[in-house]
This record gives sequence, structure tokens and C-alpha cells, in this order.
Amino acid sequence: MYFTSDNASGAHPDILAALTRANDGFARSYGADAIMERVTAQVRDIFEHPEAAVYLVATGTVANSLSLAVYSQPWSAVFAHTEAHIATDECGAPEFYTDGAKLIGVPGADGKMTPGALAEALGRIGESGVHGVQRGMVSITNVTEAGTVYTTAEIAALTAVAKSKALPCHLDGARFANALVATGATAAEMTWKAGIDVVSFGGTKNGCLGVEAVVMFDPAKAWEFELRRKRAGHLVSKHRFLSAQFEAYLTDDLWLQLATQANAMGARLAQGVAVAGARHQYPAQANMMFPEWTLGTHARLEAAGAAYYQMPAAPGMEAARLVTSWNTTEAEVDQFLAALRG
Amino acid sequence: MYFTSDNASGAHPDILAALTRANDGFARSYGADAIMERVTAQVRDIFEHPEAAVYLVATGTVANSLSLAVYSQPWSAVFAHTEAHIATDECGAPEFYTDGAKLIGVPGADGKMTPGALAEALGRIGESGVHGVQRGMVSITNVTEAGTVYTTAEIAALTAVAKSKALPCHLDGARFANALVATGATAAEMTWKAGIDVVSFGGTKNGCLGVEAVVMFDPAKAWEFELRRKRAGHLVSKHRFLSAQFEAYLTDDLWLQLATQANAMGARLAQGVAVAGARHQYPAQANMMFPEWTLGTHARLEAAGAAYYQMPAAPGMEAARLVTSWNTTEAEVDQFLAALRG
Amino acid sequence: MYFTSDNASGAHPDILAALTRANDGFARSYGADAIMERVTAQVRDIFEHPEAAVYLVATGTVANSLSLAVYSQPWSAVFAHTEAHIATDECGAPEFYTDGAKLIGVPGADGKMTPGALAEALGRIGESGVHGVQRGMVSITNVTEAGTVYTTAEIAALTAVAKSKALPCHLDGARFANALVATGATAAEMTWKAGIDVVSFGGTKNGCLGVEAVVMFDPAKAWEFELRRKRAGHLVSKHRFLSAQFEAYLTDDLWLQLATQANAMGARLAQGVAVAGARHQYPAQANMMFPEWTLGTHARLEAAGAAYYQMPAAPGMEAARLVTSWNTTEAEVDQFLAALRG
Amino acid sequence: MYFTSDNASGAHPDILAALTRANDGFARSYGADAIMERVTAQVRDIFEHPEAAVYLVATGTVANSLSLAVYSQPWSAVFAHTEAHIATDECGAPEFYTDGAKLIGVPGADGKMTPGALAEALGRIGESGVHGVQRGMVSITNVTEAGTVYTTAEIAALTAVAKSKALPCHLDGARFANALVATGATAAEMTWKAGIDVVSFGGTKNGCLGVEAVVMFDPAKAWEFELRRKRAGHLVSKHRFLSAQFEAYLTDDLWLQLATQANAMGARLAQGVAVAGARHQYPAQANMMFPEWTLGTHARLEAAGAAYYQMPAAPGMEAARLVTSWNTTEAEVDQFLAALRG
Repeated sequence: MYFTSDNASGAHPDILAALTRANDGFARSYGADAIMERVTAQVRDIFEHPEAAVYLVATGTVANSLSLAVYSQPWSAVFAHTEAHIATDECGAPEFYTDGAKLIGVPGADGKMTPGALAEALGRIGESGVHGVQRGMVSITNVTEAGTVYTTAEIAALTAVAKSKALPCHLDGARFANALVATGATAAEMTWKAGIDVVSFGGTKNGCLGVEAVVMFDPAKAWEFELRRKRAGHLVSKHRFLSAQFEAYLTDDLWLQLATQANAMGARLAQGVAVAGARHQYPAQANMMFPEWTLGTHARLEAAGAAYYQMPAAPGMEAARLVTSWNTTEAEVDQFLAALRG
Repeated sequence: MYFTSDNASGAHPDILAALTRANDGFARSYGADAIMERVTAQVRDIFEHPEAAVYLVATGTVANSLSLAVYSQPWSAVFAHTEAHIATDECGAPEFYTDGAKLIGVPGADGKMTPGALAEALGRIGESGVHGVQRGMVSITNVTEAGTVYTTAEIAALTAVAKSKALPCHLDGARFANALVATGATAAEMTWKAGIDVVSFGGTKNGCLGVEAVVMFDPAKAWEFELRRKRAGHLVSKHRFLSAQFEAYLTDDLWLQLATQANAMGARLAQGVAVAGARHQYPAQANMMFPEWTLGTHARLEAAGAAYYQMPAAPGMEAARLVTSWNTTEAEVDQFLAALRG
Repeated sequence: MYFTSDNASGAHPDILAALTRANDGFARSYGADAIMERVTAQVRDIFEHPEAAVYLVATGTVANSLSLAVYSQPWSAVFAHTEAHIATDECGAPEFYTDGAKLIGVPGADGKMTPGALAEALGRIGESGVHGVQRGMVSITNVTEAGTVYTTAEIAALTAVAKSKALPCHLDGARFANALVATGATAAEMTWKAGIDVVSFGGTKNGCLGVEAVVMFDPAKAWEFELRRKRAGHLVSKHRFLSAQFEAYLTDDLWLQLATQANAMGARLAQGVAVAGARHQYPAQANMMFPEWTLGTHARLEAAGAAYYQMPAAPGMEAARLVTSWNTTEAEVDQFLAALRG
Repeated sequence: MYFTSDNASGAHPDILAALTRANDGFARSYGADAIMERVTAQVRDIFEHPEAAVYLVATGTVANSLSLAVYSQPWSAVFAHTEAHIATDECGAPEFYTDGAKLIGVPGADGKMTPGALAEALGRIGESGVHGVQRGMVSITNVTEAGTVYTTAEIAALTAVAKSKALPCHLDGARFANALVATGATAAEMTWKAGIDVVSFGGTKNGCLGVEAVVMFDPAKAWEFELRRKRAGHLVSKHRFLSAQFEAYLTDDLWLQLATQANAMGARLAQGVAVAGARHQYPAQANMMFPEWTLGTHARLEAAGAAYYQMPAAPGMEAARLVTSWNTTEAEVDQFLAALRG
């Protein structure tokens, strides 16, 4: 009953097996391996964008940070939800990579920015000439940090606000597959067709060992990305082992199957939790949820062997952060729900 | 006949197998996995230093850059050989990580700094008060970029010069195992017993998929390292897969066996090349060498299927950079030498 | 009727005259001039702190930014009021100088942080281990950006909260003299005796041409400050011209006299404005105020020759930012009030 | 007999007087003062370039550093003479401002790069793809750090090499007026007509209190410069006092008159020193020279009251760095020469 994070799960066997296949013989290093050529083609195909620039890195932190660094300036304001991962959980990595850009929190219920709140923030920043930071870009997380999901229409509404100020838009897709599965949208619909310029396309949380793609729809940005990646120590030498993971991940829709399982288990868990009487802090729309319980309930669950993070909530209550993974089983969910019911 | 680089070779089967073993079940993320605890113990044991701080990252570039960032300041001069990898081949990663420290090239034959040249450089820099950069630290590469090897006495002589100005010393050990095998020294003898404060202890080039350890002998530096690593996007979430590689690498002296093979093949290749009449640019002391041939010879080798990098040399000649790996075979070396003899 | 800013006024004649005196003959450059020795002694005397490190720079932006850079780390959270000048009006200079520290806004009425709000922010940040930025320091502006003034007790209450987490505290004293005059406190009482570690002690707005002192009560920070200042291009060569300004500024309490005049004119203006029926957005406690008027009133004032900045307020209203200076006269204030009354 | 540096001299009376004139009344701050408009027109007129972007800052360090930051990238190589001020005497300010660009030393006799050496350096750097820093820009100092002067033809020959790789070129003109006087060239001839893109146009060393202009011939760079200047804390609030200095400096060719005097005194001193038997390390072509004397001679000069810097030279000898200023007199030079003759 391990619900701490989808990064606490291991890798899917097909992805592990791909490493062994890739291990055979010599391969050109630093991204010039043949597998990466195939990955690029796969990604372009999935995104229906034949010119997209595609790069692999080992962590979501750097996928996001490099995306921001390439699409903004040191004096930029980067607009993101107040609780965005890039703002709260990366120890200032965006500031490090951008040489000091400023993250501007945009509020919104359920972890989602609203167009109005974004417009208000854009109106407030960037109007003081040289004395203030300049409007730089917008970053949207989907699945959000609250476990909710933006529809493509909602994303398009946000990017429309951004585009009114000519700002590029980033999608933090650490759980991109889960967002697609939850909405039924295609990769193209959720990204460039909705006004997104650059995507952090996650693999790690969804069954890979450690690989994220960065997809940029303007290939003119490619070289700067490559230089920044190298300079950051994120150009891995035996790159075939990143490529192989992602190739396997994308092959035969494995990535979507894994997210489908994680989301299905999320739904089963969320429903069971609700039936048991708990309040969800936010609508549970993918594979992460935040139900509130008394400390006694938490103690009982812990005693039963459940593992998850707790965070402060209403008086006398604490919220649980429960995350299901590609390898979460119905049995595990049901065992948890049984423990919850006591 | 693939001699382009040791990072063009794959991973040792035992190390791959360790990934599969590590994949079982859930594990705490971000370095809190149980395997990492064992790795720390292994490294401390190997270095005979029970308090060493031990961290894993995915690339040598970042192992070096974080080491420099933790042990220097933005206004520091970092002294290294003129041809040091950190100075020439990392696209300014050290400058990025240190927020602008200045690399000062120290000349020396065969890729090795001499104590005299280091002392001269230390005397020249840091004497202009606030107007000049300040002496910061010294970085030594072993195996060197020229394929030569510092003895522990040579390292100690350099660190003695550094210590006379109270400067910390870094060892870029991308090929640390090869250096140990070449000299017969222990890990402790080549590092802290010789005055080294922080080591980039390479795994990738020597049979891992992608993992390097940073070993710091002053545990007071640990927390700053952790923050800088996170901020750089180099704290991987499914860290068990870094840990597992390094555990297997260190188990039963696998790391030393692999380096022994690479060095033995290097010696066989170097000797054969010399017997065939080529001049080595530098003494070939580990698994990398730079023989010079005419363009005609290069063409013949290429036609025979040999792969390696070429670089300008004496008029009419070009040097080959030949690197043997943990999985280079005698047959492969002999086939190359046969092609060389024509 | 020029109330746009105290930096739109010129320099006091005594300070200009000091430049001419200082111009005689040769002088050691880069801060080694004899006048600077006297300035250091003056500042130490005024602050009753014989060991304070004292430096001069040309702008408040850099006085603040270097103070933050010396007392924090790239991964630090710097806590300041939501509307603090360092957060809103310096185009990211603090982020640039600190290599990416994060400013955390602390709310509070009338431009003043409350101990409770600061404690809340300190409790929220720095509790997520390596994943979040670390608590770094606190910056307090006095006179505040709202034209209000912290008492020394209020400052001490804030620094007590900071000290509970061992955080250093910075005072942005761009209008330090005005704050002292407004409260009757001594320089020592408002700074180190109240828990402040480093002060930006303004001269420019209060009658100098362009000079600010940075006063650090821990002399161990001095050398780092000097290196950062040089590296920033803020160590001026003909430093005697900074020194001379500050010497004249401090001589015979000129700095306090000038602030007394500015504050007196501020009080006269504020009272007149209130009598005329305007609402002050914040209590006018020094030389800056924000009364609200209809657009018609603004038009009338403008037609009468008044100059000041306007900013949005309640519907149908705009606030005026009115700043009095060391050289504002009663006649000018009364002329403005007459124009206001129409 | 003060020959330590031209920045040890004071300001010309006309420039001081301009401060007093500028002090009258209120003025718009942050560079929007009326005097600055006139300065811009003056500079454009002098450079015969009606579109040049013109900005004032307080130090040469920042004039250079901002010029480099605007015209390069963090991953750039900046090519400059091995002994260039930006490389040796600014405590890493260029690295700080560029976020880690790398200065590549280009050797050359008498403080001057040769086209061949520059071409060689350009050929060596930037050929290793993403692994190395990229060719960024070239910086040329005139008057050089050795006291020699590039002719406009020599500058054009260097910029031609740079342009062959499409690199922008910076002129560090801390002693720009002295270089023009020494060569008889016009400002336009020495800069944009010779392939220079951005100039640090010095005022401080040549009779100002502290002001340097940055002149960029591509006005599209203006806004980035403004943002970087603000962010650096180098946008001064009472900007009229920078403007007034530079206006007076340029009025009635004062700047050229002052440099003419400094150079004439330099020539007189250099000739007298040579007649007295000293060897000049470099040809003395403007207002700075490096004659070598025995320690005994140095002691005699010091005893006679001469002030200057000494630096190591041939065995038993030390070089003097002698700098004449706009206010150096014949009497002072002759007194020095008399002391030299003993």
C-alpha cells in the first residue's frame, strides 16, 4: 500500500528490457545514437509536428528549468500557479537556470490558474518600465499539483491570454500521459494546437527509470537548448540508455496504457475514499488526490501498512497525498480502502 | 574496432542485472533508498574514510562542476591543466555552476601540471587585491586528458603547493579506476592521503550506464552539495537506479577488474602501435593514447572498419585518439594492429 | 510643485562644495582615499559600533542587492514585505546579485510586515528539505514603501522572529534619516540594537548627488562585500567623490537636518491634504504619502503645475504619490494645497 | 610627482562646475533628464552615427561588463588580449555579468593582438560542437594595457578576422580620447568605420569625476542594455549628475584637449626617461609607459617623492608603471626627470 509518489514505483519490464537490448555493442555517445533518431521520429509523430525539436534529460526538474531558460530572459517574470512545482519544490532550480528570473504566482482554485487571474497578473507586472521585471512566459502544469486536470479548452484559454502579450507557454507535463488519458485529448491537441510552445513530457513517474523529453515546437530554439543542456551537465554520454527507455515507453502506446492503469486506480481509490466519507481537497481527476482524515484515521492506516505523505488541513484533520502508479493494483487499492473503513 | 571513447561502450552485464534486481517493489526516492546506504558504506570502506560524504549523479560534467561550486567561490580562480576537460570540453559548465569562477590554465608536458608551474600560476594570480580573482582551488585529472597517469607522489606534490596557499584540491577521476590500476595505489592513497579534498569518482566510462560518485572528505560540505545538486536538477527521483549501478560496480572489485581489462588492452594496443612505427604523442599509461599517422594510414584504418577521433598533429600527420574500454578484446586490438600494418 | 520623488531634487550646496574641496590634488583611488577613512569613523560613531564595516556605493539598488548577496545564498528565501522595493522595483537586481535567491512576500497593512505574518511565512518556507528553498534572511524597509515608519520596537519584534530561525536581517534605509527623524530613535537603536545585521544607509534621496553606505555590523563580512562590489563594477576609481559627499552629509548633522525638513514638509502637506478632505491610503508618517482624488482633482492639480505619480485606487479615484524632499519649501506646499482647494 | 594612475587625478574645473549648474531645480530621474538628451546628440554627432544608442554608467568595469553581456551569451568565448584589463583586473566582473562566459587570451607583443593570433584562437575555439564554448565576440583595448595604441587600420584588421566568423567587436576605450589624439583618427574612424559594434567611451580617467559612456551602433540592443543596467544597480537616480559631467566633457572638445595634454606629458616623460637610459618595456605611445630601473633608482625616485606602481621585470630590475593625466604639468615631469638623473 505504497502511495507516496509515482516516483517510488519502479520501471516497467519492457522499459528495463529495452536497456538490455540497447546495451549491445558500441553506440555513438552524447545523443548521436541511432535509437534517439527513432525517438525523435516517434515524438514528432505522436505530436503530429514534423519539425519539433526533441531532447531527453534525466529529471523533470531540469526539463522544466531548461525549458524556462530557453524561452525567457534573466529579467523575465514567469507566470505559474501559486502552488506550481517549479515555484515550490525545485529549490530554486528555475532561478538558477534562468540566471534569476522571477516566478509570479497566479492563484486559482484546485491548482488551476484561471484566465482572469492570469490576465490580472499580466496586467500588474511589466508596466513599470525598466524598474520592474518584464513579462516573460507562462508555465502550466497538467496534471496539476492538486491532482486536477486542465481540459484542452482551459489550456487554450490560458495561452490566449499569454499570447495577447506575445508570451510563450510551457507545459509542465511530468504527468502528461495521465493528463491525456484523463481528458481524451491527443498530444497535439493539448500542446501546440492549444498554444503551448514547449513541453516537459514526463517518463519517469509513469514507468521509466529516469527520462523526460523536452519537446519544442520552434526548431530555431534547438541549438540554444543543446548548449544549455551541455553546460548544465545534463548531456549524458551513454545517451542510448535514455533513448532506449523512451523508445520502449512510446512503443505500442505503452505510455498511455500505463497512465490508463494509474488513472483507473486513482479513480477507484478516490471513489472508495469518498464513499468512506472523506472530503477530497480537490476533485480527483487523475492519479493523485488529497483526502482529509482525522489523525486517528491516519494512525490506523499507517498501522495497516499504508505509506503516503501528510500535510496540514482543517483543524483536527490532516490531508493525505495519495498517488497511484502504473503498477498500482486493484488489490492494493482495495486493501487500503478496507483499512480505511477500519 | 571501436576506439572512439570508453563512453561508446555499453554497460557490464552485472550492472545491468542490478537494475532489474533494484526494480522490485517500491523504494524511497531522491536518494533515500536502501541501496544508497549500502553504496555509501562501500565507498567509505574503499576510501578508508568513515566520514566521507558520498553522492551520486548521472554525468561527469556535473560531478566536476558541483565539486568546483562547493569548494570555490564565484570570484575564485580554479587552477587546472591547460588541457583539462573542465576547461575545454564542458561548454563552460564550471563557470555556470560556480557563477563565474575563472579557470586558470597551468601548462605541463604530457597533460600533467608540474608543481613548479602550479606554484608559478599561484604566484601570478591573487596578488592584485580586490581587482583580481582570488585563488580558489586546484583540480587535477587522473587519468589525464593525455592518457598519462599521475603517481600518488606527483599528486601529493601538487596538493602540497595548493595547501601552501590553503587551497582545496579536486580530483577529476572520470577514469579513477584506470588510474588506480595503472599506479597500484589504493583509493585512499590517491586521494585524501595525497591531499585531495573532493573526488569525481567515475563509473560511466568503466562499465556503468551513467553514474558518477562525488566523494567529499569534509562532511560539513554535504548539505551545500545536496542543495546545489537539487537546484541543478541532478537529484534524480528514482535514485535506486543510480545506487544499484554503483553498488554492482563496487561489488567484488568489479570496477577494478574492468579497469584492469581496459588498461591491459590499452597497453597491448600501445605497444603494437609503437612496434608498427608510430610515435605516441604522450606516454600511453592507461587506456587512452594518441599515436600519429599519415593521412594514408588513417584512410587505410578507416577502410578496415576502425573508428576513432583524429586531431591535427605534425605536418602531413594526424593524431588518432584511441581509447580502450572494459569490453575491448584482444581480438579487436589485434585486428586493429593487423589493419595498421597493412 | 515637484513631488514626484526625492530623487528628483538636486544636492545640498554643502555636499556639492565638498566635491570641489575633495578635487584638490591627487588621491588614492578605489576607496583608499583619506576622506573614506574619516567617513568610516563618522559612521561608526553615529552607529555607536566601533567595528562596523562601512562601504559606499552609488545607488540604492546595489546597496540592497550586495547586502542580500553577502548575507544569503543562491538557494535562500529572502523575506520582505509584498510591496518591498527590492521585490517590485529593481528589475530583479536581488535575484541577479544573489544568483537566484527567491523573494518571499510577507503581507501586512500600511506597507509593514507583522511578526505574525513573518512567522507564518517562515513556517511555510524551508520545511521541505532539499526540495524547497531554504530560509535565508529578512529585509525590512524603513521608511516603508507606503510612507509609514516602523518603530524600533516593531523592528525588534520582526528581527526576533527572524532570529528564532537564526536569520540575518537587512534594513533597506533608502530613507533612513527620515525614519530616524520620524521616530526619534538613534541609528544604533534602529539597527543593531534592534537586531539588524546590515543597513543600506541612504544619502541620495536626502541631498547627496548619488551615494549610499552599506553598514555591516559583522566585520567578517567585509572582504566578501569588497569582492562582490568590485565584481559588480561598483568599486569606483575616483572614490574620493563618493567619500566627500558622505562626509559632508554626516558633518554637523546635516543628514538629520535635511530629513527633518523633508518630514516637516511631509507633515504639512499631509495635514493640508487631509483637511481638504482627501483620504490617505496609509498613515503619512515621514515624507511620502498616497492621498486619493478624483480624476478631476488630479487634472486641476496638473493644470496648476503640480508634478507627481498617479496610481489606480478606488473606482473613480486615483492615488497620488507625493514625496517631499530636503529642499521642499513651505511656499511650495502651500501653493499645492491652494491648488488642491481650487 | 604622482604617476600612479590617471584615476588618481581629480576632475577638471569645467566638469565640476557643470555639476553645480545641473543642480538647479528638479529634474527627471533615471536618465530622463534633459541634459542626457543633449549628451546623446553630442555623442551621435561625434561618432557621426545618428542612431547610436548612448548610455552613461559610473565605472569602466561595468561599461565593459555590460557591453560584453549584451553582445555575447553565457556559453560564449570572448577573445581579448592575454593582458586585457577585462581578463586580469576586474575580479571576474565579465564572468559575473555574462553568467559565465569564458575569456580567451590572445597573445601579442606590446599589448596588441595580431590578426594572425586572433585567427588562430578563433580556429582553436568553437570547433568542438556542443562540448566547447562557442565563439562569441572580440574585445580590443585602445589605448592598450601596455600603453601602446592600435591604429584604425590595425583595429580594422582585427575586426575583419572577427567578422569572418560573424562576431561582434567591443572597444574598451577607457582611454579612448588618448587613443584618438595619439592616432589622429576620428571617433567614427576608430569605431564603427573600423568594424567596432560597441564602445566603452571613458570619461573618468580623463578629467571627469566618474562617468563612462557605452555607445552601441545597433539601436536594437538598447532595451536589453537598459534592463541589464537597471538589474545591475547601475541606473543612477539623480542621473543628471552623470549627464552633466559628460556634457561638459564633450563641450568645446574639452575631452580631446585633456587627452592632448596627458599624451604630451606622456611623450615628454617617455623621451626624458629614454634619454636617461631606461629601457621602455613597450613603445610609449600615449599617456602610460613601463620603463625599467634598478631597485636603487626606484628608491631614489621614491625618496624624491615620486609615486607610481612597480612590477617585476628582468633580474635586478623592476618596471615602473607611469601614467600621466590631463592635469600633469611640464614642471612635474621635469622634476621627475631631474630626480631620475639623480
